[in-house]
Amino acid sequence: MESEVLSKGKLAKHASYILNIKSTVEKNEALEKIAEQLLMDQATIIEENKKDLHAGKQKGLPESTLDRIMLNETRIRSMAEGIQQLIKLEDPVGELLEKTIKDNGLQIEKRRVPLGVIGMIYEARPNVTIDAATLSLKTGNAVILRGSSSALFSNIVLVETIHRALENTNLPKESVQLIEDTRHETAKQLFHLKEYLDVLIPRGGKGLIDLVVSEASVPVLETGAGNCHVYVDESANYEMAIKILLNAKTQRPSVCNAAESLLIHRNWFSQHGRKLLESLEEAGITIKGDESVCKESKAAIMATEEDYRTEFLSMTLSVKIVENVHEAIDHINQFGTNHSETIITEDVLAAETFLSRVDAAAVYHNASTRFTDGFEYGYGAEIGISTQKLHARGPMGLPALTSTKYFIYGTGQIRE
Amino acid sequence: MESEVLSKGKLAKHASYILNIKSTVEKNEALEKIAEQLLMDQATIIEENKKDLHAGKQKGLPESTLDRIMLNETRIRSMAEGIQQLIKLEDPVGELLEKTIKDNGLQIEKRRVPLGVIGMIYEARPNVTIDAATLSLKTGNAVILRGSSSALFSNIVLVETIHRALENTNLPKESVQLIEDTRHETAKQLFHLKEYLDVLIPRGGKGLIDLVVSEASVPVLETGAGNCHVYVDESANYEMAIKILLNAKTQRPSVCNAAESLLIHRNWFSQHGRKLLESLEEAGITIKGDESVCKESKAAIMATEEDYRTEFLSMTLSVKIVENVHEAIDHINQFGTNHSETIITEDVLAAETFLSRVDAAAVYHNASTRFTDGFEYGYGAEIGISTQKLHARGPMGLPALTSTKYFIYGTGQIRE
Repeated sequence: MESEVLSKGKLAKHASYILNIKSTVEKNEALEKIAEQLLMDQATIIEENKKDLHAGKQKGLPESTLDRIMLNETRIRSMAEGIQQLIKLEDPVGELLEKTIKDNGLQIEKRRVPLGVIGMIYEARPNVTIDAATLSLKTGNAVILRGSSSALFSNIVLVETIHRALENTNLPKESVQLIEDTRHETAKQLFHLKEYLDVLIPRGGKGLIDLVVSEASVPVLETGAGNCHVYVDESANYEMAIKILLNAKTQRPSVCNAAESLLIHRNWFSQHGRKLLESLEEAGITIKGDESVCKESKAAIMATEEDYRTEFLSMTLSVKIVENVHEAIDHINQFGTNHSETIITEDVLAAETFLSRVDAAAVYHNASTRFTDGFEYGYGAEIGISTQKLHARGPMGLPALTSTKYFIYGTGQIRE
Repeated sequence: MESEVLSKGKLAKHASYILNIKSTVEKNEALEKIAEQLLMDQATIIEENKKDLHAGKQKGLPESTLDRIMLNETRIRSMAEGIQQLIKLEDPVGELLEKTIKDNGLQIEKRRVPLGVIGMIYEARPNVTIDAATLSLKTGNAVILRGSSSALFSNIVLVETIHRALENTNLPKESVQLIEDTRHETAKQLFHLKEYLDVLIPRGGKGLIDLVVSEASVPVLETGAGNCHVYVDESANYEMAIKILLNAKTQRPSVCNAAESLLIHRNWFSQHGRKLLESLEEAGITIKGDESVCKESKAAIMATEEDYRTEFLSMTLSVKIVENVHEAIDHINQFGTNHSETIITEDVLAAETFLSRVDAAAVYHNASTRFTDGFEYGYGAEIGISTQKLHARGPMGLPALTSTKYFIYGTGQIRE
């Protein structure tokens, strides 16, 4: 018998060939129906979600995970509102990117087309189910969802809702497939489902992402970890430095664009170091510093090399004193994860050097790393923040879910 | 002791951080020097190349492989001329792709930047050494070359020439690294050299490409096989059909954009089938056909399913009769390799259906598949023809060797 992954892969691929020529109007109508159906099915969704929460409690899942799994009226309404926002966004499919007419009369057009079938492997959060499905449909892609067992009841009922909604639309309901078998094998099968999957997007912790990147033969869109740095240069304004640092570190410490490491120019540190460290400690930040830092602060803990590599995702910050902007750049390129890096300086030349030499998706001068975000950049939606260099880098909007295709119109031309 | 791959990986990465801010003028000057040095070193290059040819003959390599390895004055001159062409091309690095100023005053710019370090794994042809190195330098990338043992003497001398040329330029000679150990292990090491390699590009046969795609954890730019189809629709003009078909199949049968399979509408076949098959056979084409085809031609061999999947790269053509354009599309999407596909028809609706539904990098109406080529498309250079959907699809010009980066300029902005 065919495995669930294989048979759903085939269905999704087949649906993708129908989906990829649907108009923006047809796709938006389908999204509208999904938003409506979500509100209509609210009671059932919450009931099924309770089963996940109950099982989670029994298994002793941490409160933070249970909170991520939990769906209530407010959260369902906010999902529906998210879909309404998505409907308003421009459809990238069909966009004409290049057009040339050659001397021989051949007309060459390069246009955006859907990727085909997107595989989404994710953890706990059932809202990713709705997110991934609606972003895929908006861009004319079919999607295979593979969530975790801890949200299985929720995922099943949400996909049922989507299917019910799609029944009254021009979009095939096979466009959205959920793998209900959440054993490790089914993820592995998806890693190698090259014939039916065009891209795999892992969403979750570093462990999941690293596993997918290292094992999958299907191309992966890596949305990654952020070991983001704030570098305070010799000429930095003190008020600006502390303001940006506190924002980058404490506004939401658990997200990928939060700062994890602070580099300070030695001369600036001599003048402002003690005051800065006190302010950070007052804000509840635990400091892991080098020798110079530990000399200035009793509360600081001696940092190891491993600390400089760590994405704490908490109120811990590694701190290192550097001799100049070049040492800061080298440190970031060695220890960073190519996500978001900022320099605080009044020296334009130092800023230019930092911005051009630091190898990251987003480089900032005198601003918080927390801005790296699809909504902040004005994309209206975010698939994730890519830390890879191929296809898409940084916050990914809808175009990241498209490919391109050459359409060539001739009148009998042959190559000489 | 550090392995060759690891130590050269580090050198290349380090060089890439110097290279990525070099100006177009500096890069073009370096390319100019390489072109000059190639001509100056001609005698030595030919001498070293003879060692490869001699070893190849002893090993009994086929004539076609020996020809691919062979360098003579004409070929070296043509390499130098290729570099002169490359110098004239626009440098994609630095190109401003997006610019927005947000309400809070943040200025966000998205610019093209080099990828970093490119890993190139390739077979026999020593000209790929020069090609890969110069395309990489033009786009500000460092490159690690891993050719095959059969061209090792040639590759070593060519990289020495490059290094000699770079000595008198502003580009670090560590930008171009050759892995001289051609055992299988060194390729495997490159597959997983994530810390120092930003992309891997395999160039060679299907076996090599499949191996890299399935094993590498470094992102791969897949330049792939072409099982390209010509579909002759019901309303096709006979003269146009035979002209395009012969061009697509016979002009250069060994390349990826040559046609491998012919689909014919049953009604058209009833009228023109016998004549067409005769013309194909007269042109020296071996036909593997379905039952209808074999009935019309004594010379035709019965095709297996495997034949319809095969990229013959020779004068063999698979032929199948279909009931309509939809069956043609389904067949291509099932058996094709998403490379180049063409429909010959006078029916605009059939053409539109075919072009929009066939899942391939390049789709043609009334033109030969042989046009899928970076030079034909006007890109002035070609990295290869991508059959993947992420990052680049179809003929890849210089921009395919770049990534993007967000530069954000602030005055102390924090996220609320």
